[in-house]
Amino acid sequence: MNIDEYLQQRASIVEEALFRFLPEATAFPPVIHEAMHYSLSAGGKRLRPILALAAGEAVGAQQYEPMLPLACALEYIHTYSLIHDDLPAMDDDDFRRGKPSCHKVFGEGIAILAGDALLTYSFELLTKLAVPEGAYPESLVIQIIQQISTAIGTGGLIGGQVVDLQSEGRPVDLPTLEYIHRHKTGALFKTSILTGALLGGASSPQLEALGRYADLLGLAFQITDDILDIEGDASLLGKPTGSDAKKQKATYPSLLGMEEARRTVEQCISESLDVLRGFSEKADPLRLLMTYIRNRNR
Amino acid sequence: MNIDEYLQQRASIVEEALFRFLPEATAFPPVIHEAMHYSLSAGGKRLRPILALAAGEAVGAQQYEPMLPLACALEYIHTYSLIHDDLPAMDDDDFRRGKPSCHKVFGEGIAILAGDALLTYSFELLTKLAVPEGAYPESLVIQIIQQISTAIGTGGLIGGQVVDLQSEGRPVDLPTLEYIHRHKTGALFKTSILTGALLGGASSPQLEALGRYADLLGLAFQITDDILDIEGDASLLGKPTGSDAKKQKATYPSLLGMEEARRTVEQCISESLDVLRGFSEKADPLRLLMTYIRNRNR
Repeated sequence: MNIDEYLQQRASIVEEALFRFLPEATAFPPVIHEAMHYSLSAGGKRLRPILALAAGEAVGAQQYEPMLPLACALEYIHTYSLIHDDLPAMDDDDFRRGKPSCHKVFGEGIAILAGDALLTYSFELLTKLAVPEGAYPESLVIQIIQQISTAIGTGGLIGGQVVDLQSEGRPVDLPTLEYIHRHKTGALFKTSILTGALLGGASSPQLEALGRYADLLGLAFQITDDILDIEGDASLLGKPTGSDAKKQKATYPSLLGMEEARRTVEQCISESLDVLRGFSEKADPLRLLMTYIRNRNR
Repeated sequence: MNIDEYLQQRASIVEEALFRFLPEATAFPPVIHEAMHYSLSAGGKRLRPILALAAGEAVGAQQYEPMLPLACALEYIHTYSLIHDDLPAMDDDDFRRGKPSCHKVFGEGIAILAGDALLTYSFELLTKLAVPEGAYPESLVIQIIQQISTAIGTGGLIGGQVVDLQSEGRPVDLPTLEYIHRHKTGALFKTSILTGALLGGASSPQLEALGRYADLLGLAFQITDDILDIEGDASLLGKPTGSDAKKQKATYPSLLGMEEARRTVEQCISESLDVLRGFSEKADPLRLLMTYIRNRNR
């Protein structure tokens, strides 16, 4: 299995669905739908949807199609969080993946509303997992809505954004850095994997193993993100490097040292393979994703 | 039945639940929970939760307690929309019900996140309608989540905010004014009444009648809001009057004339009584609410 090809194929499946489920860009009032489409089409790896589908398949889902509303809802949520995070009152980023950020194109008011709309729409879409009648049991759909809303609330994603916002321009210690990443990035990774696994019919031990896998993946992802900001190629990343250092932002390499940061990534990879030992070859995408994350250049 | 007493009693029942369901203000990270509590405790009439409970009881719900998660979710959603609407990039209001608005106290970044958190938490709370097992059928809970997310999306509340935002400083005609209010205010009123009725076990004809009632209530509410901005008492309203005229905002009195605006309110009241003719005395709160809205001074 070639993980790059797999990711590319999956990303294009997800992208087709992302725009199929969304109201058209011309729907009234057009500006808000244009803003939603604009931010969704800025690209990105579509990692969260891909993780959800891969986790579902790793525990036995035969088809990925019925899971697509979940996959897309996760990407809408991710995009909402990026739009709000880029606002002047938050991270104040003018660019996202090499394109002007939503508020630079549509103004702050519409950007706030576009984020709100993507978040709101993700819940509408999740209810469709139970339609047509019987696609998934209603109790499972409710469990998934509950799981996601908790993961992206003040005890999860939003909590991470709050602590990140409050840490701006202040020295940050390792526990705080870990809190920020476990919540701001890790919570949505984890819920993507767990809800995908739930749709796939995962058992409790499988959920536990995949939860641990998700923690390792989130950590490896964040450390390599920090490393790329130091050593990456700005043209591949679509954003200038060195921005963390410029903002005096604490990162894993700055707190642990580059060598220890790299060693932690390797530990994450090796432990993740242990954790997935009981899974069939259907979990290979999850296994290969770990090394993909280490080797990525964007 | 004394409608003022009824509303006061219901508001205090709702308020107790609003703070009981929410994470405590001291929960980590405290600032976001403080901001959520701050905006929720700014008062207000709690009309949407009261409407949901009243609609449920109008169609036969014996107890209001199991409906409280719905009632509170609706108020969280209303509060989220107010917090975001007050932001400088939107309506730019420094005060809300006589108190400094959320972003004036906590800063714009936290205010954006507090709105996001209230919206997110409302969906988490809605899933609890199905817990303990069997409180409400899971299919009904999904229907309610679907109904609410649609009502507050780009075809509903957010759509109204978008058109309102785009109309700022421009002449607005009656169809545009009607669009704004039917969506920005009307959609959440209507979904409050319909979802309350759904929990109460409403039949299709009952839902249709209550949907029409909701439209009339929303219109009467908005017209009296506009009238209060012209003729009201600023100390009772908790905000300065004349702000619509100052912002050159189109209102019903400015487009229809004061006399015609008042006549429309009377028509709404009389049609709403017709619409509710088939309902028992349990719908009296809904009936009396119409005249309460006409006579209110805040």
